Amino acid sequence: MPELRLNFVTREWVIVTASKRPDDFIGVKKKKKPGFLKTCPFCPGNESKTPDEIYTVRDEKGWRIRVVPNKFAVISEEGERTRTHSGLKKCVSGVGVHEVIIETPIHNLTTATLPVEPLKEVIQTYRYRFLEIYKDPRIEHVIIFKNNGPASGTSIEHSHSQIVGLSIIPLQIRNRFEEYMRFFDDTGDCLMCKTISEELNEGARILFNTDHFVSFVPFAALSPFHIWILPKRHSGSFADITSEEVWDLAKNLKSTMARLYYGLGHPDFNYVIRSGKIGDADSEFIHWYLSIVPRVAMVSGFELGSGVYINPLIPEIGAEFLRRVKIPEYYI
Amino acid sequence: MPELRLNFVTREWVIVTASKRPDDFIGVKKKKKPGFLKTCPFCPGNESKTPDEIYTVRDEKGWRIRVVPNKFAVISEEGERTRTHSGLKKCVSGVGVHEVIIETPIHNLTTATLPVEPLKEVIQTYRYRFLEIYKDPRIEHVIIFKNNGPASGTSIEHSHSQIVGLSIIPLQIRNRFEEYMRFFDDTGDCLMCKTISEELNEGARILFNTDHFVSFVPFAALSPFHIWILPKRHSGSFADITSEEVWDLAKNLKSTMARLYYGLGHPDFNYVIRSGKIGDADSEFIHWYLSIVPRVAMVSGFELGSGVYINPLIPEIGAEFLRRVKIPEYYI
Repeated sequence: MPELRLNFVTREWVIVTASKRPDDFIGVKKKKKPGFLKTCPFCPGNESKTPDEIYTVRDEKGWRIRVVPNKFAVISEEGERTRTHSGLKKCVSGVGVHEVIIETPIHNLTTATLPVEPLKEVIQTYRYRFLEIYKDPRIEHVIIFKNNGPASGTSIEHSHSQIVGLSIIPLQIRNRFEEYMRFFDDTGDCLMCKTISEELNEGARILFNTDHFVSFVPFAALSPFHIWILPKRHSGSFADITSEEVWDLAKNLKSTMARLYYGLGHPDFNYVIRSGKIGDADSEFIHWYLSIVPRVAMVSGFELGSGVYINPLIPEIGAEFLRRVKIPEYYI
Repeated sequence: MPELRLNFVTREWVIVTASKRPDDFIGVKKKKKPGFLKTCPFCPGNESKTPDEIYTVRDEKGWRIRVVPNKFAVISEEGERTRTHSGLKKCVSGVGVHEVIIETPIHNLTTATLPVEPLKEVIQTYRYRFLEIYKDPRIEHVIIFKNNGPASGTSIEHSHSQIVGLSIIPLQIRNRFEEYMRFFDDTGDCLMCKTISEELNEGARILFNTDHFVSFVPFAALSPFHIWILPKRHSGSFADITSEEVWDLAKNLKSTMARLYYGLGHPDFNYVIRSGKIGDADSEFIHWYLSIVPRVAMVSGFELGSGVYINPLIPEIGAEFLRRVKIPEYYI
């Protein structure tokens, strides 16, 4: 019988069914991408196709990472944060920050295939921009996310992430923080610290347990192979990550993504860093993490109309499949 | 400059940008579908490919509408509603109802092209099943929705709707009802009655204003051409719809869908009826409605990570485009 599982963070139910097996999500073999593409705006030589760099990591051979304003920014860098309100029309001016992080000069690398060292630099760059963007007094909340492949909502195949600074705090974020607080108030524990200890204890959904991070398929995973990577040290803000932890996260993230990449034939995916602001580092109840959603299933009118997700793959079976995927030896 | 608009129902912000024009969403010409397809499980002659009928509308020529249990039900019809709870694992057994409404025997008709009379019968069938399913004491909430086309999450092209009876009340639904209640408490008005009067007064986003319903693009539309159809008579439950209103809704829905169909080249879409339960008909603050989401834009990591939608088309411009679409004369 299907089972409704409660997501303790969103407090929404997920319908978990056994209607699919892991193999059903193995994608068709994708066309091999070249290492360099003349028409790609993110490939070396095409730097003029993007706005001027905000930040660059470079060596004698050229740039390794570029951060540029998003040419198609959804919010405007310039302007004041103003509010208007008339009847049921309530608006805030769309000011904020929207940057693109070009993760590598090589066109065909992705999170699973980028070596650990440059992936570490990508995460360091996230942190640097995260800290910088929060200095803007108009900014209330910063989101770091990655879209990879057409099903994830991007048309650019060259590996990149985005960082958006918003002039409001999204309700989704406030609701999650309230749940963390409620759990802390109820139990005296951090919800995510408790989740880590229960997951490690049970083991059935664990993928990688490294020095500082643990990756696993959550009990109430909202879609097949949905994965969380949680820092084992309690901290409310990504801003607080140490150099040693950055290195460990790069290793854990790369190996986790490799399970998806080699096991499912390079699925399109999104990931997002869910974090409190800089000052939330000391919060007793907020615990930042990284959430990965491979885009292997469709959302239908049912999810739109109810908010309840249908996961056609049992999380424990998805996790077991991923643990068995053969990945090259140089991974952890 | 982009603008953040507040959705008063979800209390979430939508980023509205002018990055696209209506023409950008006109789809590629689709292959013409046949009126009958031998391999389609919903076409006449293939009745044995679905479970036995729960309800049928028929005449001397055969069935016009069939309601059958969903062969791939996400919840199980049989069994008790039981709960288990261990640490952070909280479950409810997946019992409930999941039915399919095959709207027409003709393979290539859709909501926009189905004549008003059979569309009226479809809505009557929704109502009949809605009332019946709520009789099951295990059922807490019923959702009626339609997926049309692959981008909407269905692989079956024959026009059909689905109705799901859940053994829990989704948090999304509870949150909306709380917002309705809060608004009523704040202002003494029903949020949706107030929305109707403001929309009709301004006119910029209105599509069709018929005797009993008004269709429009909401001020904080979460995606291009997102449309609401609201009953003008205040009522908390779809169960409460009168025969005259069913007829008017069929006319309004068909004409609204025709604007999308002829204007955008048959876009894939979802629609959902958002309603309180039967007993909510008399609620002073709940107001049922129908919400249509054409699947013309992708959701990215930003929406997943923030809950904030990006609508790249200004709602007023989308509405104006739809009003200008030429639809055949026999529509209202």
